[in-house]
Amino acid sequence: MKKVIIVGAGLAGSYMAYAMGKKGYEVQVFEKRPDPRKSSYGSGRSINLVVSHRGWTALAYAGIEEEIRKIVVPAYGRQIHDLEGNESYFAYNIDNKAIHSISRGEFNKTLVELAEALPNVNITFNSFCEHVDFNKGTVHMKQGEQLNAYSADLIVGGDGANSSVRNALMKQPRFNYSQDFIDSGYKEVHIPADQNGAPQLNIDALHIWPRREFMLMGLANTDNGFTGTVFAPFDGEYGLDHLNTGADGMRYFEKYFKDAIPLIPDLEEQWENNPTSALVCIRCNPYHWGANTMLIGDAAHATVPFYGEGMNGSLEDVRVFLELLDEHGDSDMKKVLEIYTEQRVPAGNALVDLSLRNFIEMRDLVADPSFQLRKKIERKVQANHPDKWTPLYTLVKFTNIPYHEAKAEGERHDRIMEEILAMDGVEENWDSEEVEQEVLRLFESVR
Amino acid sequence: MKKVIIVGAGLAGSYMAYAMGKKGYEVQVFEKRPDPRKSSYGSGRSINLVVSHRGWTALAYAGIEEEIRKIVVPAYGRQIHDLEGNESYFAYNIDNKAIHSISRGEFNKTLVELAEALPNVNITFNSFCEHVDFNKGTVHMKQGEQLNAYSADLIVGGDGANSSVRNALMKQPRFNYSQDFIDSGYKEVHIPADQNGAPQLNIDALHIWPRREFMLMGLANTDNGFTGTVFAPFDGEYGLDHLNTGADGMRYFEKYFKDAIPLIPDLEEQWENNPTSALVCIRCNPYHWGANTMLIGDAAHATVPFYGEGMNGSLEDVRVFLELLDEHGDSDMKKVLEIYTEQRVPAGNALVDLSLRNFIEMRDLVADPSFQLRKKIERKVQANHPDKWTPLYTLVKFTNIPYHEAKAEGERHDRIMEEILAMDGVEENWDSEEVEQEVLRLFESVR
Repeated sequence: MKKVIIVGAGLAGSYMAYAMGKKGYEVQVFEKRPDPRKSSYGSGRSINLVVSHRGWTALAYAGIEEEIRKIVVPAYGRQIHDLEGNESYFAYNIDNKAIHSISRGEFNKTLVELAEALPNVNITFNSFCEHVDFNKGTVHMKQGEQLNAYSADLIVGGDGANSSVRNALMKQPRFNYSQDFIDSGYKEVHIPADQNGAPQLNIDALHIWPRREFMLMGLANTDNGFTGTVFAPFDGEYGLDHLNTGADGMRYFEKYFKDAIPLIPDLEEQWENNPTSALVCIRCNPYHWGANTMLIGDAAHATVPFYGEGMNGSLEDVRVFLELLDEHGDSDMKKVLEIYTEQRVPAGNALVDLSLRNFIEMRDLVADPSFQLRKKIERKVQANHPDKWTPLYTLVKFTNIPYHEAKAEGERHDRIMEEILAMDGVEENWDSEEVEQEVLRLFESVR
Repeated sequence: MKKVIIVGAGLAGSYMAYAMGKKGYEVQVFEKRPDPRKSSYGSGRSINLVVSHRGWTALAYAGIEEEIRKIVVPAYGRQIHDLEGNESYFAYNIDNKAIHSISRGEFNKTLVELAEALPNVNITFNSFCEHVDFNKGTVHMKQGEQLNAYSADLIVGGDGANSSVRNALMKQPRFNYSQDFIDSGYKEVHIPADQNGAPQLNIDALHIWPRREFMLMGLANTDNGFTGTVFAPFDGEYGLDHLNTGADGMRYFEKYFKDAIPLIPDLEEQWENNPTSALVCIRCNPYHWGANTMLIGDAAHATVPFYGEGMNGSLEDVRVFLELLDEHGDSDMKKVLEIYTEQRVPAGNALVDLSLRNFIEMRDLVADPSFQLRKKIERKVQANHPDKWTPLYTLVKFTNIPYHEAKAEGERHDRIMEEILAMDGVEENWDSEEVEQEVLRLFESVR
């Protein structure tokens, strides 16, 4: 039985531990943080994630879909709040399929428990990876005052955006890496349930207050509260670098998110005390080293959160790798890892690109009439010709088509819709047979 | 008197130590390697550099130009060796200005000696930077078995492509970084002087055997030998990854660099024993942190060696910073460092771009007839109108115009010459008044 060491018991790491354990591997997981079941997670900054089709596919592959279905909250669409406080609702999908919101902490605890219940999986907390020796296949873990070396046939870096395994790889020649911070950051504000424990906003929707250069977003929690997040540039008059005090925050909300103020009784206090955080995009290549090391999840491709796909792409990394093992076996691990890199590097890069693109869409385009017109036309064509027109969002959220293929198809749609939106009178006759036929014609001809 | 700690006693670090020492700062330099005067440098891999105008400007600024003039070898042009062994010579500059080849080891020793001779400069070798605390302004140096903390008003990362100071910065939010390895690597072969101690090749020229996808380069040493370097892709039939044995190397030279074989008596042995190395481009932003930390040289912008400008750009970083201190004083160091980043990040990025561009030019375009035609036309226009047409190479090598401005002007020249080379019959009448006038016309109109 081959031995696998996974560095990091986050979502990707603990999911992989469970799935590799089920395959019969001897799995040792090291996690630098304390056991999440014995401590609060992430020091009060609740983080909500969305499980999309890719996430469910990975969970189903490992046979734990039903387990996780118990702890999600469905979201069927976006609810847009304009400057005047008007709200409008846009379903994600014409079939009324939902995406599912989940608490990162709860999800993680569940995966850790599932993995640890297997006799051949062991998880050791409070263990920090100081060094990896790729030639010897050893990881050197700082555990309390001790530095202990452990060896394995496969070392997996599932240790997130600040990955120690990737940091060790970065010292190898021919390992490419970049970290790019975007010009915007974020600050969270918690929107509680009302006195009766009921939600203050439509609980079935993801809420967005799009304001072009910035936005407020609200994502439901299981307790009927919402995690609100302001995403905004650091610079400028209303840049986060210049909105430090509670009074600054209140003035900002008065001007741009007035209807949200009554939802957050302690807004000033939260604004002043919650940290302003930066958002990074990480890319690297390859995702493996030799025949014994690989990266999964944020360690390979951390991204901004605007498509809600970071976690789904991470689970997909693991699912794809597991299927490669099913197909090729593990006798030539070098070859399996090479295919893994070949398939997942373009997917990881596209995931980052798509996430950046969706930031523009969410904060900006949803407030743009021509974007809404485009969505209406696409929705109609999709409804009438579901076999042909699958919008980018659907490709990303409701299929397992590799991200880079979805991205390419989305860019093709952009070229088609650019021509459609340039048609005379399209604002009035978008619903006409003529427009629909032109979309279909371009669908066949535009490459 | 303010205290400065410079991490790294390489060329940029020791030059800065000397220049800051002359300004009256208390300078402490830490270098991880042993004293270069007591040990051979870089384990036998001799590395030759070229001092261009920017380098001389920096040395002159610090008053040590004459000191360095004593240890350089002039190079006036490129000597091209074709597949049949024919040679052709191209001057770098119509004024017969030279560039100057210098041994990295000798250069470094001289700078270290100059710096150490100042009473307020101290250099400590065998000191590895483990950690930087930006808030406290301390560097934590591993010295033998001890870890000692030192504090300073300014911490300078001059510690090269694998910079520890930059690695510490990379853990800070909003610090952007990338490392990109190109698809080609290199292997060195030493071309000795002949039995009488005379050079086997024209000692005044840089020698190139351009072969489109790869090339051999020869750069003169002070002992009349040459450092030969094969730059080639890793992949493919004649990729470096597949040319491992001495016999592989000999077969490769037989096919592509036949005229160089007699110059290298122990070619097979050298080929087998000398390492194959990778080539990396490093970019980051900003080049400073807060009011007390900055990066210079390769730590900020390591590049491929094809323009021979890495060292010159590094000395220029320091010269620009010193002039900013002259202009603004050091009472508001944060402001000085912000201007430094503003000026040097675009310059550093352009240095990397220009170096990559020159790889294409050296290995590929010099073997291309239309490139040679273009050079002839440019040379004529430059000779007749030196106030107008300054070729990119001249802007880079013989001026102090910031690299990004030189790059932009070079791209404008590309657009102009693209039109010129598309003129009917230009191959025959390139020397005509008509072509010259058209170049001048486009020079005024093309932006």
